Amino acid sequence: SSASTPIRATLFPGDGIGPEIAESVKQVFREADVPIEWEEHYVGTEIDPRTQSFLTWESLESVRKNGVGLKGPMATPIGKGHRSLNLTLRKELNLYANVRPCYSLPGYKTRYDNVDLITIRENTEGEYSGLEHQVVRGVVESLKIITRQASLRVAEYAFHYAKAHGRERVSAIHKANIMQKTDGLFLKCCREVAEKYPEIKYEEVVIDNCCMMLVKNPALFDVLVMPNLYGDIISDLCAGLIGGLGLTPSCNIGEGGIALAEAVHGSAPDIAGKVNILEPFDVQSAMYIISFSAGEESAYVRPESLFKFSLGRGSSHLSYPVVLYIITVGVDLLKRINIETCLNLANPTALLLSAVTMLRHLELHDKADRIQNAILSTIAEGKFRTADLGGSSSTSDFTQAIVDHL
Amino acid sequence: SSASTPIRATLFPGDGIGPEIAESVKQVFREADVPIEWEEHYVGTEIDPRTQSFLTWESLESVRKNGVGLKGPMATPIGKGHRSLNLTLRKELNLYANVRPCYSLPGYKTRYDNVDLITIRENTEGEYSGLEHQVVRGVVESLKIITRQASLRVAEYAFHYAKAHGRERVSAIHKANIMQKTDGLFLKCCREVAEKYPEIKYEEVVIDNCCMMLVKNPALFDVLVMPNLYGDIISDLCAGLIGGLGLTPSCNIGEGGIALAEAVHGSAPDIAGKVNILEPFDVQSAMYIISFSAGEESAYVRPESLFKFSLGRGSSHLSYPVVLYIITVGVDLLKRINIETCLNLANPTALLLSAVTMLRHLELHDKADRIQNAILSTIAEGKFRTADLGGSSSTSDFTQAIVDHL
Ligand SMILES: CC(C)[C@H](C(=O)O)[C@@H](O)C(=O)O
Ligand SMILES: CC(C)[C@H](C(=O)O)[C@@H](O)C(=O)O
Repeated sequence: SSASTPIRATLFPGDGIGPEIAESVKQVFREADVPIEWEEHYVGTEIDPRTQSFLTWESLESVRKNGVGLKGPMATPIGKGHRSLNLTLRKELNLYANVRPCYSLPGYKTRYDNVDLITIRENTEGEYSGLEHQVVRGVVESLKIITRQASLRVAEYAFHYAKAHGRERVSAIHKANIMQKTDGLFLKCCREVAEKYPEIKYEEVVIDNCCMMLVKNPALFDVLVMPNLYGDIISDLCAGLIGGLGLTPSCNIGEGGIALAEAVHGSAPDIAGKVNILEPFDVQSAMYIISFSAGEESAYVRPESLFKFSLGRGSSHLSYPVVLYIITVGVDLLKRINIETCLNLANPTALLLSAVTMLRHLELHDKADRIQNAILSTIAEGKFRTADLGGSSSTSDFTQAIVDHL
Repeated sequence: SSASTPIRATLFPGDGIGPEIAESVKQVFREADVPIEWEEHYVGTEIDPRTQSFLTWESLESVRKNGVGLKGPMATPIGKGHRSLNLTLRKELNLYANVRPCYSLPGYKTRYDNVDLITIRENTEGEYSGLEHQVVRGVVESLKIITRQASLRVAEYAFHYAKAHGRERVSAIHKANIMQKTDGLFLKCCREVAEKYPEIKYEEVVIDNCCMMLVKNPALFDVLVMPNLYGDIISDLCAGLIGGLGLTPSCNIGEGGIALAEAVHGSAPDIAGKVNILEPFDVQSAMYIISFSAGEESAYVRPESLFKFSLGRGSSHLSYPVVLYIITVGVDLLKRINIETCLNLANPTALLLSAVTMLRHLELHDKADRIQNAILSTIAEGKFRTADLGGSSSTSDFTQAIVDHL
């Protein structure tokens, strides 16, 4: 009903708790009068040949057209002739930089105070090349690829970010003492870019040493830029310092100015056996049912045990099943069954704060400030907190409290 | 003067603070009547063609013959047709498992209590293959190699260790959701070995998640086993939890039962400009002088600024110069100048505790207990602590206090 045309943004609610926390974002945005109209896309149930994954071509087109989007967690089974959903998004949309701000939340105590770190991760190459093969029986290799182009691009982004946000220092994280050529090239590119930003301090820190320093004294760092796998590791470590991935926003920057904000979840309630199956399927025809947790671990279960399976041995630090895939009897075809959890226990903070980074990308700073302040105040106040933060509020009560703080 | 023949053990004092802390071990062993006779080997000043590194063939032979050894920090410059000292040792002696126990030191407070972790790192392959090349200009790749043989061997060692030490659980750390073939093979091997140890719990944890859990709650883990680079990263992270690499022992296990205990240093006093040059050399003939800190970072300095160089931009988390290399005018030959620091400020704890692991390997448990208790009591008492632990004791006063506790 506003006179100005709303901005269209793509929304991938994602798997498991995704739809629940996406609902929370929609509610908060509505109440804050954010002029955004969501284009919702669920992951497809069959492999789309144009994306070679369960992601639909239409959903990618939606992000390309809108230029901005928000995504919840997406889980992918390994192998079976299709690509990981997360990697497909990164490669197809050329999401070259993953930015994860990580700061202590006022009022939420961990072992660390005043953490204020930004990790900027190269997001398209490195150890994630997907190039692997068996050389001879019992000997396998995988290729780590580092290119000048991608390294310059992410370094440029990091220094640009540091300057734009009044940050003092950029640390390039590497293991060039061992991988002299690959990580060496990455460092060379960082140095080249550093020359152009004399006002920003630049340093190089070996990854093992960096991890040790981060747990001893995170205040030693400011903005960190690094190749893909190191970014994966260090951003999770940093999230751990302030309470976990349930609290840290993340935003992917793509060529052509695309911004896809994303929640990367870790901690979660135990909701085994308490999922909703969104699409009906014939349990009798299912040969195997594969369940996934946060895209990282999987368990094959027999159909008869669907509602009582346990991830068992090998998974004790696990979160929860967020998606099911089935292999049908007689047909070696993987089908994806969208499910959602409906426990109303999930913490929507990471997705909400990610949505805020999306607003900043759109330069809607007033809305961003208003929503961010409401989230932080709600957590600081401590009356309404979800179970992962030691509270007992439901997702919807926590969301309502944020709305009340707007 | 004891009647029984002493056991011979190789000692590499190493670079920088190495000789000082090795002196501390020698004193404590003497006072505790440990029946060990040290065979000391310094790093050579020229490249030994038989080892392709500055390590002498004789020093490797010494470890092979004795079966046990102790080493201080060793620094290597990158490139120039010779191999890293640390990697040469690992490969030539086939040191396949690097074991790093990491436990909270009573009386020395950090953010974490009751840490008690064992990291067991595959030490010969993975990302440390040294196989790297430029594909085309601006595109480089490095090979990560995982073999069934090395993976089984380290997994076997980890489960054996867990059982022998009454540990409950082994966690295999991996990124098989991305590196399905390499890390997948590593996991497969761990699972095979796990089958043979039904009394030990087994689980698989993705590296990023592992780092997050470790900083949130290290008590979730017990024994961790992993490929080379993850071991490098996670063992440093764990050391950080209890105060740093100055406090954690490490022991390398090689085929044929070799045990090379080793201090892996991180934190150190600022001793720039305060080094002793052990071998005279002609400063006038030196074209460049290359200084190294803990083998991980380097700075090229002009001879005239030798005693006032600063590592400057790019090295702010650095320790101190531990070795100098020179390139002589007219001759493109690298020469190594052994230097030592003589500040009497270094913390010998990591080397001492490493020496204790060597004693345990030799089944000299009484001596090991006596020395370990004396070290821990000295730290717990808190009267004598080196600067890195917030105290003001010298290396020799701290060592004397340990001797007094024997
Ligand atoms: C799910 C997994 C493939 C992913 C990654 O490794 O990049 C995740 O850990 C992340 O950080 O987004
Ligand atoms: C100095 C370096 C080559 C070495 C490694 O990466 O293995 C060190 O970090 C270690 O952990 O022993």
